[in-house]
Amino acid sequence: MKNIITISREYGSGGYEIGQKVADALGFKFYDKELIAQIAEKLLVSESFMRTTEDKLIRRNIFRETFPILSNGENQDADFVFAQQGKFIVELAEKGNCVIAGRRADYYLRDNPNAFHLFFYADTDFKVQRICSMENCTEEEALKKIKDMDKRRKTSYEYVTGRKWADRHNYDRMICTSSLGLDKCVEEIVTVIR
Amino acid sequence: MKNIITISREYGSGGYEIGQKVADALGFKFYDKELIAQIAEKLLVSESFMRTTEDKLIRRNIFRETFPILSNGENQDADFVFAQQGKFIVELAEKGNCVIAGRRADYYLRDNPNAFHLFFYADTDFKVQRICSMENCTEEEALKKIKDMDKRRKTSYEYVTGRKWADRHNYDRMICTSSLGLDKCVEEIVTVIR
Repeated sequence: MKNIITISREYGSGGYEIGQKVADALGFKFYDKELIAQIAEKLLVSESFMRTTEDKLIRRNIFRETFPILSNGENQDADFVFAQQGKFIVELAEKGNCVIAGRRADYYLRDNPNAFHLFFYADTDFKVQRICSMENCTEEEALKKIKDMDKRRKTSYEYVTGRKWADRHNYDRMICTSSLGLDKCVEEIVTVIR
Repeated sequence: MKNIITISREYGSGGYEIGQKVADALGFKFYDKELIAQIAEKLLVSESFMRTTEDKLIRRNIFRETFPILSNGENQDADFVFAQQGKFIVELAEKGNCVIAGRRADYYLRDNPNAFHLFFYADTDFKVQRICSMENCTEEEALKKIKDMDKRRKTSYEYVTGRKWADRHNYDRMICTSSLGLDKCVEEIVTVIR
């Protein structure tokens, strides 16, 4: 029985929105920022602390890729946060009936037989149009945001998991949202899970 | 309306069998070796000629990857066959209501708005078990066959198309057949297409 769905996605693909709608349709809980907040509570630190630590890590790793010799390799704060996130996600999933967006949940739940891992992607034009309309920005800004966000996701995913981001073998389904639109994706996933 | 389905797959994933069952369920035609035979007829050459020419090309390209300086780069026979295959697949798709397995159909039909491109993959254990049971071979032989066949597909795909084999952006859906089994995949695709 697949009653835990993890959502990974390219920025702007609509995977987050699909995750929410799938959770609604199946009567599952939907976790994202709320999840971060709950982890933060467990860690007895503020949510803003976690964001800052993670942000620092990501910047440091992007820097390291370009100039490896200049980095000092000390990521202890971030490593602690990631390890706590992982433990928390594993605990959370034990209850089942949930959709978890982001947070590398596919990796932490890779051995959970009830987990179903989805990755969403889309044509660039589709993503740009969605971002422009949702964030009221120019196409150029949307393109830059796609590049930056996917780079951040890839960097943190690969740092924490040692796996390649968007590698098909880490997912049960990879779905192009621009082919048939978001609603059709929701319908499809609900059919598969039920 | 998506009434042309192309099937690409890892060897042993069951994508071919899924394609046949989807075609049955939707009342679509299923093309694979029959397609080769029809192209061969168009070319007024025997089917065995085409297989031999393509095989030669693939061997030559695998060789070239390892020792680029030793190859002479003359692939005119094979290029002619590939070009004819491409034209034929485009013509074939004009009639719609079909499933086309292999032959780089996703590439030739990349601009056809009615085409829906599927890629099937699976866990190695799943593929090995299927191959052992279907071909009555050892696990070691199955593993070797997977490696060899995927290498052949990748080489010819990348030679002809200039695109990366198994790149998600070339497909509408990438489906892990070992997650829920072949029958569930058939049901899922039929739901999406209908």
